[in-house]
Amino acid sequence: MSASAENPPPEAKIVNVGILGCGVVGSALVELIHERREAIIAASGVDLRVTAVAVRSASKDRPGVPSELLTNDAKGVVADENVDLVVEVIGGIEPARSLILSALESGKPIVTANKELVANYGAELSTAADAAGVDLLFEAAVAGAIPIVRPLRESLLGEDITRVMGIVNGTTNYILTKMSEEGASYEAALAEAQKLGYAEADPTADVGGFDAGAKAAIMASIAFGAQVVAGDVYHEGISDITKADIDYAKALGFEIKLLAIAEVIDGDQREIGVRVHPAMVPHTHPLASVRDSFNAVFIEGRSAGELMFYGRGAGGRPTASAVLGDLIDAAANVSSGTHRTVPVGKPCRIRSIDDIESAYYLNIEVNDRPGVLAQVASVFGEHGLSILSMNQEGLGAGARIAFITHSAMERDLQAALHDLRQLDVVIGIGSVLRVIEA
Amino acid sequence: MSASAENPPPEAKIVNVGILGCGVVGSALVELIHERREAIIAASGVDLRVTAVAVRSASKDRPGVPSELLTNDAKGVVADENVDLVVEVIGGIEPARSLILSALESGKPIVTANKELVANYGAELSTAADAAGVDLLFEAAVAGAIPIVRPLRESLLGEDITRVMGIVNGTTNYILTKMSEEGASYEAALAEAQKLGYAEADPTADVGGFDAGAKAAIMASIAFGAQVVAGDVYHEGISDITKADIDYAKALGFEIKLLAIAEVIDGDQREIGVRVHPAMVPHTHPLASVRDSFNAVFIEGRSAGELMFYGRGAGGRPTASAVLGDLIDAAANVSSGTHRTVPVGKPCRIRSIDDIESAYYLNIEVNDRPGVLAQVASVFGEHGLSILSMNQEGLGAGARIAFITHSAMERDLQAALHDLRQLDVVIGIGSVLRVIEA
Repeated sequence: MSASAENPPPEAKIVNVGILGCGVVGSALVELIHERREAIIAASGVDLRVTAVAVRSASKDRPGVPSELLTNDAKGVVADENVDLVVEVIGGIEPARSLILSALESGKPIVTANKELVANYGAELSTAADAAGVDLLFEAAVAGAIPIVRPLRESLLGEDITRVMGIVNGTTNYILTKMSEEGASYEAALAEAQKLGYAEADPTADVGGFDAGAKAAIMASIAFGAQVVAGDVYHEGISDITKADIDYAKALGFEIKLLAIAEVIDGDQREIGVRVHPAMVPHTHPLASVRDSFNAVFIEGRSAGELMFYGRGAGGRPTASAVLGDLIDAAANVSSGTHRTVPVGKPCRIRSIDDIESAYYLNIEVNDRPGVLAQVASVFGEHGLSILSMNQEGLGAGARIAFITHSAMERDLQAALHDLRQLDVVIGIGSVLRVIEA
Repeated sequence: MSASAENPPPEAKIVNVGILGCGVVGSALVELIHERREAIIAASGVDLRVTAVAVRSASKDRPGVPSELLTNDAKGVVADENVDLVVEVIGGIEPARSLILSALESGKPIVTANKELVANYGAELSTAADAAGVDLLFEAAVAGAIPIVRPLRESLLGEDITRVMGIVNGTTNYILTKMSEEGASYEAALAEAQKLGYAEADPTADVGGFDAGAKAAIMASIAFGAQVVAGDVYHEGISDITKADIDYAKALGFEIKLLAIAEVIDGDQREIGVRVHPAMVPHTHPLASVRDSFNAVFIEGRSAGELMFYGRGAGGRPTASAVLGDLIDAAANVSSGTHRTVPVGKPCRIRSIDDIESAYYLNIEVNDRPGVLAQVASVFGEHGLSILSMNQEGLGAGARIAFITHSAMERDLQAALHDLRQLDVVIGIGSVLRVIEA
């Protein structure tokens, strides 16, 4: 609620904020800090003052951002003794990384929304923040406006988390929703996402699972106190998903979603699995109802049970809202001379995708003649794959058989696929999708 | 993950914890603290030591709780100089309130799971904690294991929250799910909930909306920095909901859910609305998919957009997990000599239910003769109610007409209902339910 009728209390502590970057998130943040100033003072006792906004071109007009705040000199902002706290919303690795390290070295807490940087250099940044004794907060780097980093780091600090599964890429979820609800083709849904600005002209980072992979690395690192970088994450995208797959999935009671999954494989050995791929999610599972460009992170803990956090994963205002939450926290800590100790993640083993177990959905096109099913079934049997359910339908001269397997090892599944492709009766293998159990 | 291979670092700070109460939550908490000790040290640097557990009868055997910790002397635990921090899981108003106040007076931070106490004496407790300069944390008092208090207080501190809507009572959600998915009657679903231990022998607190009302008061207080007590909350329960209502709702694309709603009516005037009642939630709304005894809290903010937090709202281990999160936070603050400043809520105006606007669903049984619809429609018109959609079906000699109205004031709706009952052609008015807009 507005607190406009009240004057800021005299004891409000001024905290000077330098912002690096002024794109959609940076400019939304400057506006939000201005709009919410009195409410923030009332709620936290800190008076946030933006003293500088570093941009590549200070002469460009930026609506909502007073021009006298703009500067080309990012290094100067970081070095400025009057700046108490630095917000980084440039994105990408450099110059963000060097600027943050230099701010930390000079004892300035950092708030960043930079998933790429945190996913690749998180341990380096955490170590530097730890050495400096200041906060390094990055709520906005995963799942935009959704509070997920803080709940994992604080509320669930004592919880034995076994698995984190997220829909953390809004573009792909939008595309899959259009395909599922409106029967759009992948190409048409992608084109619409591009038209709406949800997808880039080159959509590879989103549809190829790279963006979700970076977020999976961050979630794994926080949930398991581990050191996982983006390159550790096995990923598949959604560009091979067809309308037929989605229709099949629906008929079987599933939605297809691109999931980022981080799970404990062997807690005693500090071994985890981290991966991104499309998966069939049962309709009764909370993640199945996450529609359009929304994100959600589903957490399983031994005591807490199942938890899910849902909201906007991207966009200027939603992301700026997450940055602002961190900023107020860091500013309150600056003004009281404290910071939150977060132990730097420890190395852990990451199990190869070949050794990960999952249930699978496959559909196989075969010649419709006697003995076909026996041949196919015997390949499954040879590789130790057991069948949970099967459905066959006629298809002109051939037939399509759809299988759902019990939980099996990826390497066994791949070996079976290899052998199936050698069978004369097999015309082709359609999609192979992992199945999330209800 | 287990940290059993590692010894606690020498710098781990011991924090002595006194626990008041040892029911399902208290005993689960003692077990959890024991099980997770090394992981907690690794993650937070604090070594939680339970020094005493106050119970009514110390001679009763409590599995998982070492008997030497048990004592009848709750006041002694609170006064003990060796106790750094007090956890209250007795429940109810007294003696919990007096014990907490006396612990706060002696400078001990409090972690409590007591929704009744926080919903009725939250301001008193906050004022006392503020005066003592120590933490008062109560994550477990709303929505059990779901982190909701901390995200509202911290992550969303800068957010302009306009509405909070929660499914915060697992018993009623379980009953409504059984009725919706299995076609059970209210009575049969309630009996099953009682058999499973989800509902008490006297289910009034749950099915009458009292429990959800207390949680609504707490959510309103935190989300809006207000002072709202349980008695301020208008509430209706679910005992009048019939299978027919649920079937109708489904056919129209809705699920019926018991919602606790806190919303800003006029931010400048610090006026809010707080209420609990069954409502029709559209199938596309995330709250519609919250099944069984799960809870969820849906938050709307001006910048963040829509957020939802989902999980277990009750049960020993899930509730203890939420208590443990608070406990670690408070203990880390004790060991670093800090605490989180939370401003005491300010009084605010609460709008009477009569002046609250909502869309409504009504079903009216009428004699099936010419002119009936005109008579009914003219009553709507006289009270300024406009119809969004209408559906009539034959019913022997009569007919049932179901309406959904556009947004209207409660007092106008009630006046229209009064006049409708006077019409000769109206045999009866079935359920009247508020409708949540998509």
